[in-house]
Amino acid sequence: MASNSFGQLFRITTWGESHGPAMGVVIDGCPAGLKIEANDIDAALSFRAGGKNNYTTARKEPDSASILSGLFEGVTTGAPISILIPNRDVDSSAYEPIKDLLRPGHANYTFLEKYGLFDYRGGGRASARETVCRVAAGAVATKLLRGIGVKIVAYVKAIGEVAACIATENAEELKKERDTHPLFCPDHLAGSAMEAVVTEAKEQGDSVGGIVEFIVNGLPSGLGDPVYNKLEASLGAAMMGLPAAKGFEMGEGFRAAAMRGSEHNDRFVREEGTVKTATNHAGGTLGGISTGMPLVGRVAFKPASSIKKPQETVTHSGEETTLEFPSHSRHDPCVAIRAVPVVEAMVALVLVDAFLLNQCVRINQITPAHSLCGDAPLQETAPHSPHPSVSL
Amino acid sequence: MASNSFGQLFRITTWGESHGPAMGVVIDGCPAGLKIEANDIDAALSFRAGGKNNYTTARKEPDSASILSGLFEGVTTGAPISILIPNRDVDSSAYEPIKDLLRPGHANYTFLEKYGLFDYRGGGRASARETVCRVAAGAVATKLLRGIGVKIVAYVKAIGEVAACIATENAEELKKERDTHPLFCPDHLAGSAMEAVVTEAKEQGDSVGGIVEFIVNGLPSGLGDPVYNKLEASLGAAMMGLPAAKGFEMGEGFRAAAMRGSEHNDRFVREEGTVKTATNHAGGTLGGISTGMPLVGRVAFKPASSIKKPQETVTHSGEETTLEFPSHSRHDPCVAIRAVPVVEAMVALVLVDAFLLNQCVRINQITPAHSLCGDAPLQETAPHSPHPSVSL
Amino acid sequence: MASNSFGQLFRITTWGESHGPAMGVVIDGCPAGLKIEANDIDAALSFRAGGKNNYTTARKEPDSASILSGLFEGVTTGAPISILIPNRDVDSSAYEPIKDLLRPGHANYTFLEKYGLFDYRGGGRASARETVCRVAAGAVATKLLRGIGVKIVAYVKAIGEVAACIATENAEELKKERDTHPLFCPDHLAGSAMEAVVTEAKEQGDSVGGIVEFIVNGLPSGLGDPVYNKLEASLGAAMMGLPAAKGFEMGEGFRAAAMRGSEHNDRFVREEGTVKTATNHAGGTLGGISTGMPLVGRVAFKPASSIKKPQETVTHSGEETTLEFPSHSRHDPCVAIRAVPVVEAMVALVLVDAFLLNQCVRINQITPAHSLCGDAPLQETAPHSPHPSVSL
Amino acid sequence: MASNSFGQLFRITTWGESHGPAMGVVIDGCPAGLKIEANDIDAALSFRAGGKNNYTTARKEPDSASILSGLFEGVTTGAPISILIPNRDVDSSAYEPIKDLLRPGHANYTFLEKYGLFDYRGGGRASARETVCRVAAGAVATKLLRGIGVKIVAYVKAIGEVAACIATENAEELKKERDTHPLFCPDHLAGSAMEAVVTEAKEQGDSVGGIVEFIVNGLPSGLGDPVYNKLEASLGAAMMGLPAAKGFEMGEGFRAAAMRGSEHNDRFVREEGTVKTATNHAGGTLGGISTGMPLVGRVAFKPASSIKKPQETVTHSGEETTLEFPSHSRHDPCVAIRAVPVVEAMVALVLVDAFLLNQCVRINQITPAHSLCGDAPLQETAPHSPHPSVSL
Repeated sequence: MASNSFGQLFRITTWGESHGPAMGVVIDGCPAGLKIEANDIDAALSFRAGGKNNYTTARKEPDSASILSGLFEGVTTGAPISILIPNRDVDSSAYEPIKDLLRPGHANYTFLEKYGLFDYRGGGRASARETVCRVAAGAVATKLLRGIGVKIVAYVKAIGEVAACIATENAEELKKERDTHPLFCPDHLAGSAMEAVVTEAKEQGDSVGGIVEFIVNGLPSGLGDPVYNKLEASLGAAMMGLPAAKGFEMGEGFRAAAMRGSEHNDRFVREEGTVKTATNHAGGTLGGISTGMPLVGRVAFKPASSIKKPQETVTHSGEETTLEFPSHSRHDPCVAIRAVPVVEAMVALVLVDAFLLNQCVRINQITPAHSLCGDAPLQETAPHSPHPSVSL
Repeated sequence: MASNSFGQLFRITTWGESHGPAMGVVIDGCPAGLKIEANDIDAALSFRAGGKNNYTTARKEPDSASILSGLFEGVTTGAPISILIPNRDVDSSAYEPIKDLLRPGHANYTFLEKYGLFDYRGGGRASARETVCRVAAGAVATKLLRGIGVKIVAYVKAIGEVAACIATENAEELKKERDTHPLFCPDHLAGSAMEAVVTEAKEQGDSVGGIVEFIVNGLPSGLGDPVYNKLEASLGAAMMGLPAAKGFEMGEGFRAAAMRGSEHNDRFVREEGTVKTATNHAGGTLGGISTGMPLVGRVAFKPASSIKKPQETVTHSGEETTLEFPSHSRHDPCVAIRAVPVVEAMVALVLVDAFLLNQCVRINQITPAHSLCGDAPLQETAPHSPHPSVSL
Repeated sequence: MASNSFGQLFRITTWGESHGPAMGVVIDGCPAGLKIEANDIDAALSFRAGGKNNYTTARKEPDSASILSGLFEGVTTGAPISILIPNRDVDSSAYEPIKDLLRPGHANYTFLEKYGLFDYRGGGRASARETVCRVAAGAVATKLLRGIGVKIVAYVKAIGEVAACIATENAEELKKERDTHPLFCPDHLAGSAMEAVVTEAKEQGDSVGGIVEFIVNGLPSGLGDPVYNKLEASLGAAMMGLPAAKGFEMGEGFRAAAMRGSEHNDRFVREEGTVKTATNHAGGTLGGISTGMPLVGRVAFKPASSIKKPQETVTHSGEETTLEFPSHSRHDPCVAIRAVPVVEAMVALVLVDAFLLNQCVRINQITPAHSLCGDAPLQETAPHSPHPSVSL
Repeated sequence: MASNSFGQLFRITTWGESHGPAMGVVIDGCPAGLKIEANDIDAALSFRAGGKNNYTTARKEPDSASILSGLFEGVTTGAPISILIPNRDVDSSAYEPIKDLLRPGHANYTFLEKYGLFDYRGGGRASARETVCRVAAGAVATKLLRGIGVKIVAYVKAIGEVAACIATENAEELKKERDTHPLFCPDHLAGSAMEAVVTEAKEQGDSVGGIVEFIVNGLPSGLGDPVYNKLEASLGAAMMGLPAAKGFEMGEGFRAAAMRGSEHNDRFVREEGTVKTATNHAGGTLGGISTGMPLVGRVAFKPASSIKKPQETVTHSGEETTLEFPSHSRHDPCVAIRAVPVVEAMVALVLVDAFLLNQCVRINQITPAHSLCGDAPLQETAPHSPHPSVSL
């Protein structure tokens, strides 16, 4: 049911198959007055493309987005923003010989079970190529959030058995270190060990899993809803909806299960006129609502299912066979690396939606409508702004 | 936005504060023709109440549900099912002295930040008392699922540093062992060690965290949607929306991050005319859609924030003070134990919704409408059933 | 799919059958800080009950609502508001003899077709008794709207061939005249003729249709969304979802089909510093968005299907028979009269939802979050209010 | 909130401005296995383009749709279907001189009030050009409905004071007569009078309103939901959401207000083993659910607001001025004519959604999942079909 949409007030709908003509996303509910430049999106796509390392299978040509609607003179109008990203570097030949095989760990089996047919070329809709749309939409969300002081960073926290040691919750510092490492790991020492792990897996025609962590600074308190739409629940849906995701945790996460309450509870303190907590075991939420402390979460990714090593399997009709990809087929040895920009994008999409939803939860916060002539028709206190477009 | 509702086709809406007159849930979208008895729900509430052990703070009187609508002669009619559960054993006096304090690890701070006011009595809407509604609704979902052969079990997997060793994915066996252990742990050896941990925490006026695991047998393949509404994403939202939940994982979960693809991929085999996988590292889904193998997931719960130990904090206005609960206040030393029936209920709610959503995804599956007189007006092949109510 | 819910941000869910123990509604998304008194709702229910005239079948005892959740010290908390209205005056005996008959013009046939069974007592979920929940929820919406200066009035515009002549768009004046007429018609001359029509229909064991008009004053401009969620589309869904509604129109409505553009277009003028239109043929919206002029709409109601006159029909199994209600059965000769408070309630529900949705459509309108200590953490301009509850 | 989307299970999202590069629609939730050819959509677009008469302002080049996703080998896969329609014949020069004027009867005023800015070129998002997306999506819905025997026709019922006399509810006959008349009116005698009305309005630089009627044959009973999602409510939202729509009615509609119950109630009869009604005053629904009789409804359209005649108005800043379109600007003298294919499309979208939603409302109707190997894992009665794609 609208399973290709995400979000409530700031809502995206994505479409496109890996080896079809293009991928696309429609953003509905972006407030009017936000300046967007084509480069805002292309920069995010370029970050997703993964750069010039040997660890990810970048398509040959960089992705470039066309904004087909929703902007007028460079500013959002409140109309849906349609973004289209062509699929330039498509080669379906690797998939032809294996089209009748069930691919171990892959969704082609379950798509067949559900729909009775499957677009096998490049994985069709099940391909991680779909995440290019999330990243494009995330770039718009990020632009809006930046204007209210929210900073998001994601990075590789672990690959295989190697975990990074992260000693700060400062998003900018982490981003700086991350951006100078080929595996997006801000702890360069651990990062070198990770490189060895990925290289080994690749040489063996295998893949390896990993963990991506995100940290958000500057998030206002009060975002998220009690009960079913807790902020961590929305983040959980977003992260567990990523290709290859197998786990999600906030703050101490699974470690909290082994802690005592007296140890895990974050003490409230007053600092510079604001309430804060002395520690941040909670990871930035209490009871589903943001505290104003850094938001901290982690996503576990399984090793990619597509590997060069031959694998025993069966065909659609149940006959035993061996799956062996052609030698020229391209696979990521570690999808967690590629997931970094996608995690950032999904965090941004969750937060911008929570932010908009938080605009009408108190009687004393809601305001009467706008007036073209600058006079509020109903109350003297209407927050009229004469400048319709505001640069964030 | 409808933040007190959960589900799409089978949709629940809950209401009620811990120390208000009653809790309630409205179930919308339950198919007509399902036999429901009051005891179906009361038995689930009794399981939630936790029994006669020393480890949970059962209210003195058992909960009992009134079904106020949606049934006719014991059978669902397709109309909304309203269930009301009175709050019989309410004592707000323990909350009066601490009403101006920020409770460490508790949502009273964030509710105040969001709404500007907080119903402090018993935690109001932030209380785990709300889960009684999830369990009541889950009982209806479970009844429906049982009719199509789906069996769900949840149990305590870990408390503190002690983890159970679970050697089977058979839900019935696990349920049998679980039901004979006071902490709902099917591994009785580990369970004894857990008892010691909980007892110690309780004696120290402290609390301890834990992990709940669930396993589902008999789930059809094809449930869940690709992209944003993956089955694991819906489960992630459901589980991360539970009080005190800090982490969620499916199958190998976070362990998958340290695995190789050749190790994690589950090999497809043909067994008794059906495709299965030889192993189940994936935990029952591929690409967001159920495989037909057992569904396996885990939820990490933090230690309860409410503890008897004195804690430093500040008041609403920022003055330093100490939070000390009155000696007669009641707190759970380990909320993970109480979470077991709630996890089962939320799994049932996710699955019944996914099941209904899966009824219209293929052209050759959808059928023309029903006809009172038993004649399909449009096509010869209409699957008319002469018996409107079917006992599952 | 959530077919018993209405609204998006301010969302109601109703439950209950006419002859069950109670009716109820859960309001989710009402902003925190709104003062609600029990009498706000009971007064609306009393208006719905229709008073002491001979033209409507008031149940013997007045309805009285219990608010079971969502208030703390008389103020909304942001939690769901559960309202329960007992069914005190239930007598199902009139329905027993006709339970196997298809009632002409009634939904018992289509419920049977859809669900395979029907709660025939009092019409079950198909009864207009359900509207008591709409009126209760509408009272809360109306309270909120009144605080921002919005005034809604509905009244009987026509019964049978008799139409009222309404020469003003002033809601308060209309309300005053309406409230002194037994048929809720502000044109008392026409009202007298309507009385004769209703009396005649009643004496003949028949029923008669009618038209209800609503007018809203003080509505801000900018409410409603372009394209699919136009304000008139939301109103259309609300009004066509009323029992017995067969038509809905805005402004000139069907008369507009016979007009010229030069005649229908409302000329813009500047008046007291605000843009207005010289006429209001449009009825208060342009392109789906409110103009700030009075909102004007009309709903056509068919004559009630339940009449005392014998009617030929068939049984469930298709045998010819005659439907004759017992002499003590109670039927409204004109449901349009009873619909007046329900139309008002639904208009209020549509408008409050549109109002909340309009809080986050411009970048320069959205604000960072609240802060308990009164300091906006992110921007100097945060609209903090020290008083969490504001009396509207 | 997702205000550019329509539908629940079969859900469309549209985007694009009249004078932007393209219009587009994403269809989410179309069942897998439906054969779609490019011509299915282009034929519908061609019908919308209005042909070679003098009464509508066809763009010079015909519209042609590109299907960018969701099909594999000509069959739907269950993935979102993205359709793009280029805007080939764009000339914004007519809008430049009037960009600072409030256009009487037009949405540019309310868009400015809501969003603070307006894409004035061609009306931007407020243009009826958006309906090209509805028609494209409607073509897919229509294909599906045709497979289950549902036939929809819409036609011009009235223009100005001239009304057609329609003596049949047979959709095919009506379609045949409609398609041979330049104004889409099946009553050719009335149609000639309508031609005179439109010609006169055009010559005077004016516009005229009209009424479009739709009739559906072969609709199964049981579609639509009680209470808030009545079939007539969904149709009401769909029709009142059309550009220039001012009224909607079902069956007798507003005429029902002047009728007696004994006259309006449709008598149930048994005919050829099926229950029918002897008359169809209700227009095909009772209590919000389809009866199986022809569905009949009507939409009133106001005269187009854009006319050549000079009109007094004010500028954005409130100064008095005169609006005069350049002589080369193109306007429809009667938008009701152009609305005919759009009404058909929206009816199809409402019905296909109601049809899918009706697949899971009875326990004895729902079925376990599919199995790739043809064996139902859970029940012997699983309705497996060996042929995944079925030509409707």
